[in-house]
Amino acid sequence: MERIKIGVIGAGRIGRLHAENLTYRIPEAEVVAVADLFEAAAERCAKELGISKTFGDPSQVFEDPDVDAVLICSSTNTHASLIEQAAEAGKHIFCEKPIALDLEAIDRALEAVKKAEVLLQVGFNRRFDPNFRRAQELVTQGVIGKPHVLRITSRDPEPPPLDYIKVSGGIFLDMTIHDFDMARFMMGDEVEEVYAVGAVLVDSRIGELGDIDTAAVTLRFRGGAMGVIDNSRRAAYGYDQRAEVFGEKGTIVVSNPKPDTTVLSDTQGNHTPPLLHFFVERYTDSYIAEMQEFIGCLQEGREPPVTGIDGKVSVVMGYAAQRSYEEGRPVKLEEIVPELSS
Amino acid sequence: MERIKIGVIGAGRIGRLHAENLTYRIPEAEVVAVADLFEAAAERCAKELGISKTFGDPSQVFEDPDVDAVLICSSTNTHASLIEQAAEAGKHIFCEKPIALDLEAIDRALEAVKKAEVLLQVGFNRRFDPNFRRAQELVTQGVIGKPHVLRITSRDPEPPPLDYIKVSGGIFLDMTIHDFDMARFMMGDEVEEVYAVGAVLVDSRIGELGDIDTAAVTLRFRGGAMGVIDNSRRAAYGYDQRAEVFGEKGTIVVSNPKPDTTVLSDTQGNHTPPLLHFFVERYTDSYIAEMQEFIGCLQEGREPPVTGIDGKVSVVMGYAAQRSYEEGRPVKLEEIVPELSS
Amino acid sequence: MERIKIGVIGAGRIGRLHAENLTYRIPEAEVVAVADLFEAAAERCAKELGISKTFGDPSQVFEDPDVDAVLICSSTNTHASLIEQAAEAGKHIFCEKPIALDLEAIDRALEAVKKAEVLLQVGFNRRFDPNFRRAQELVTQGVIGKPHVLRITSRDPEPPPLDYIKVSGGIFLDMTIHDFDMARFMMGDEVEEVYAVGAVLVDSRIGELGDIDTAAVTLRFRGGAMGVIDNSRRAAYGYDQRAEVFGEKGTIVVSNPKPDTTVLSDTQGNHTPPLLHFFVERYTDSYIAEMQEFIGCLQEGREPPVTGIDGKVSVVMGYAAQRSYEEGRPVKLEEIVPELSS
Amino acid sequence: MERIKIGVIGAGRIGRLHAENLTYRIPEAEVVAVADLFEAAAERCAKELGISKTFGDPSQVFEDPDVDAVLICSSTNTHASLIEQAAEAGKHIFCEKPIALDLEAIDRALEAVKKAEVLLQVGFNRRFDPNFRRAQELVTQGVIGKPHVLRITSRDPEPPPLDYIKVSGGIFLDMTIHDFDMARFMMGDEVEEVYAVGAVLVDSRIGELGDIDTAAVTLRFRGGAMGVIDNSRRAAYGYDQRAEVFGEKGTIVVSNPKPDTTVLSDTQGNHTPPLLHFFVERYTDSYIAEMQEFIGCLQEGREPPVTGIDGKVSVVMGYAAQRSYEEGRPVKLEEIVPELSS
Repeated sequence: MERIKIGVIGAGRIGRLHAENLTYRIPEAEVVAVADLFEAAAERCAKELGISKTFGDPSQVFEDPDVDAVLICSSTNTHASLIEQAAEAGKHIFCEKPIALDLEAIDRALEAVKKAEVLLQVGFNRRFDPNFRRAQELVTQGVIGKPHVLRITSRDPEPPPLDYIKVSGGIFLDMTIHDFDMARFMMGDEVEEVYAVGAVLVDSRIGELGDIDTAAVTLRFRGGAMGVIDNSRRAAYGYDQRAEVFGEKGTIVVSNPKPDTTVLSDTQGNHTPPLLHFFVERYTDSYIAEMQEFIGCLQEGREPPVTGIDGKVSVVMGYAAQRSYEEGRPVKLEEIVPELSS
Repeated sequence: MERIKIGVIGAGRIGRLHAENLTYRIPEAEVVAVADLFEAAAERCAKELGISKTFGDPSQVFEDPDVDAVLICSSTNTHASLIEQAAEAGKHIFCEKPIALDLEAIDRALEAVKKAEVLLQVGFNRRFDPNFRRAQELVTQGVIGKPHVLRITSRDPEPPPLDYIKVSGGIFLDMTIHDFDMARFMMGDEVEEVYAVGAVLVDSRIGELGDIDTAAVTLRFRGGAMGVIDNSRRAAYGYDQRAEVFGEKGTIVVSNPKPDTTVLSDTQGNHTPPLLHFFVERYTDSYIAEMQEFIGCLQEGREPPVTGIDGKVSVVMGYAAQRSYEEGRPVKLEEIVPELSS
Repeated sequence: MERIKIGVIGAGRIGRLHAENLTYRIPEAEVVAVADLFEAAAERCAKELGISKTFGDPSQVFEDPDVDAVLICSSTNTHASLIEQAAEAGKHIFCEKPIALDLEAIDRALEAVKKAEVLLQVGFNRRFDPNFRRAQELVTQGVIGKPHVLRITSRDPEPPPLDYIKVSGGIFLDMTIHDFDMARFMMGDEVEEVYAVGAVLVDSRIGELGDIDTAAVTLRFRGGAMGVIDNSRRAAYGYDQRAEVFGEKGTIVVSNPKPDTTVLSDTQGNHTPPLLHFFVERYTDSYIAEMQEFIGCLQEGREPPVTGIDGKVSVVMGYAAQRSYEEGRPVKLEEIVPELSS
Repeated sequence: MERIKIGVIGAGRIGRLHAENLTYRIPEAEVVAVADLFEAAAERCAKELGISKTFGDPSQVFEDPDVDAVLICSSTNTHASLIEQAAEAGKHIFCEKPIALDLEAIDRALEAVKKAEVLLQVGFNRRFDPNFRRAQELVTQGVIGKPHVLRITSRDPEPPPLDYIKVSGGIFLDMTIHDFDMARFMMGDEVEEVYAVGAVLVDSRIGELGDIDTAAVTLRFRGGAMGVIDNSRRAAYGYDQRAEVFGEKGTIVVSNPKPDTTVLSDTQGNHTPPLLHFFVERYTDSYIAEMQEFIGCLQEGREPPVTGIDGKVSVVMGYAAQRSYEEGRPVKLEEIVPELSS
């Protein structure tokens, strides 16, 4: 079978991570080009990974007939328009989350994808984490019967730089968005209403920027189930990512993987090593698996499992949470977008 | 030191449990009388435990000069008036939760206690569970710094009889009330606002009685922290009681104690035994410890650690949650009672 | 049913523990007398527990017609002759381990028991620990098929006083003897051969007394299975008591119960509290359960589950281990006693 | 830095595994040739991994000036002579364990390595497992003080084919050899004496071939510590690889990594997924890490951490265990080889 030829747009941390995974872990794909507005970054990446072409302008990737598919790993504000351009150029697309913070831009991007009949996968990598994935499979197999309650704890080890906070869209669109997608994935149901509380407990400068750093969100699902999510921008003990689905026949708990299995017992008690530091360490396997899935979908021409609608709904949920927090009341998703998944 | 002489009012399950603990586990106390409107129950209990006196009318306990203190373990609707009578008779009081479902009746009862200068302890036994207690001590010692987020999962193995549901006051006043008290205990702070969602997912007959069987409650604390509680009337796998306090320097998780430490590994995986069935099994030690604490307070003349105000606040939170659920909006506790803990 | 009337011989730590359990936890029994050569100790114990009679001479217990059964909790060197006397007086007997360090004395004691047709239970309390007991039940039920390998780790938190070491009979007869009994209990088979290595690693003064403080023992069972036991007189982190039975269909691991279920996560990792300190804390429930079993056997006239032969075999294994250690070679049990369990 | 050019000898499972790791995971190295007596196997491997040269005769690898270092992954009986040839050709060497079953052949091979001044690393991959490695680091750092007792459990999920058993050298030289190396690695001390028991409990045909399938080995270390190892050729529940080092200040336990972190709770209890199936799954990371280390040593010209002596001592221990098992007595290593690590 022919290798899928990939052009990577954006040579920042996540772009390089995907490029490296494609190069070293996924023999079915080949990175043939990397583009970055800061072309030196593209060149450095290309050199390290043995990629032949670099561009300073992403549109050059779309024009390259060698490229079958693009990975959009540039800054969020460029995603939607790059999706449109890629679609128009007939390239398949993997786009990092979120598609956009502007819902109309998302709709335009999805429309372009639809029209061009290219495949689009959105980068909710946590769906590919072996732990969450296994839980979701058990739920889908009916092992716990109908799901009743979802619980997600999602805490970062430290807040991002303040400059990033400023343009992040706020905690719900930047951080909880992953949990919103996880909620839909784990429960196999859509959320109807969201209620969010939040506070500035970690760093007052985050509050000065109009954002919060700690939040708790309640979800009501269409099927009657409910969910609770709690977030913090700083867990002193590491990157904390857990979930539970409780159903009529049992419960499934996903806890944090540990870096190793040692237990030290001494006069102070029993000790296991700290959690993996952050997403790159914790989700190493999930980044590889999502890319394998994307490549597999391209090879077989099937619809990727994380669609444009998935990308859109999570943003809608983020806006609903934001409004709920600001107005101190539960907010229905249809308040944000009248018809969601039609 | 003289043994504290106890009269037990109500020879049902919980009354007999306390009587048995006092008899066999707490040498500093002696049950001298047991009363039950259904006097045969009192007699059976007295016979089994070697208690000398039985009464068919609780008021006879108050008249008995041998009795130093009473345990009010009768049905909820009798608690408040029995507290008043006991106080007037100069007896110290241990009263099962809730003090009453009627807030004015609670106030009258607390007023009587205050006036009579007797000691009152309310039966929130979970505060004495060694697991939750240890977590609370660690929080109090500042091990995790300022608390930011509280999580409580509290699920019963099966719903109570429908006849009980009818008079229970609803899930928030009957079941979540324990978690409300735990929330205040673990966080060392008062709750300002409550938001509750709920559904009938376990048994439609519970819905027909106007109650729900599954709920998720968000708490906002005065100090800025937040909390999430989830409840179910039926966890197929047993009595599930967990909590977590996450703070600026770390997190403390309390999981379920297991009946034994065996792990069986076979071709299907690794297996540990099911959870303890219900509160009698799970909270065995906490019932003994709360009674020891009550007896200790009487001996030393100090204020019991679970006060009448604790008993009142948890009921107020239950009403706030109920109203929140019914009206689909967050409800401040001051909406229920203007001045709470003055 | 009539309460079983018990006379306790020896008011030291273990005698008082049993007396207290019988008094407060086992309504079917009543301690009517306590004897100790140091009569003041007997009196103190009697006063605290409300026991009516005390004696300075154990033989007075045997003469007391009120006494149905005796608990022999005095020093090891008195056990065998007290068993003989008790048997001759027609009293049922619970005797702490070991029956004696002199195998002929054991035989005489068991002969007297047999002749008098009284019941005898030996104090291997660990068989009643809910964790080991559950594992043994699973093995007996065939859950793991035929057992192949046994592993026991048994470590004390600190060595006993040197004065105790002197008269203890050595680590194999004093400490490993419990593990020898556990091995037979868990595997449901007899040991054929023992190989022991040992060293003085904890305290050189133990070596000066001719004993060792660290040991590893290999067992060969008659049915072909094998076992490994490791012992230490000092585990800095607490009383460590674990076991595993590995069989053709799986394995069962028994780990240490924890004092509570809290897990603290901080920058240093995840922490659970230290192990329970020593046998009184770890085996609280097993001491109660073994006494309940003894009382139950007396009430129903059935043979106790830990017999005189069990008491004898463990001593034989201790001698075999000692000889193996001294001579640096595996030693068959039949070398110590030609016909073991006839 | 120049990439290290590798020739792989033996295109069986382990040779291909290393070749794949070098190709996809270790950018500092490049596999330039693969040789196998069955040249079609070499060609298939080369094709899949994009390796340019294949040979049917291993000696051709030694003659290839492009090759810096060789990986000897052929059958055990060829290892020693290939080491000699590689050394004479001036190639650095990574050799799978065991170096040979013939101690004189080992000595000749090590002599050739010494004379040629090439680097040699022996394939004890478990030293590179992150779990065991972390434990060893903690021991080396002195966290538990002086080690007193080592425990290793090492069980395969199923026996190898009978044809393999025939030429394997027996369980001690084929399977326990890994644990012997682990024992020396974890304890940082040499073994003085070995005592082994064993039995045929898994498959009688293994016994008919003169081998055993279940074993327990006691080790006495020079420094006074002791160790117990238990092995089985078949653990129904998967590949079971655990270790513990107990020392004066604490203990370190290494348990099995789980494939994911899900816990399913239902009416039957709490369930985690089965262990990873076998060494390829369990030691994925260790195979990569050992190869990284080998390449790193070549780049920096430093002595590999698993030396020829390590390779030899483990074989000596295997012979000592075999003799101990056959003669039913402890065997000193100096009985096998008078001067071991001179």
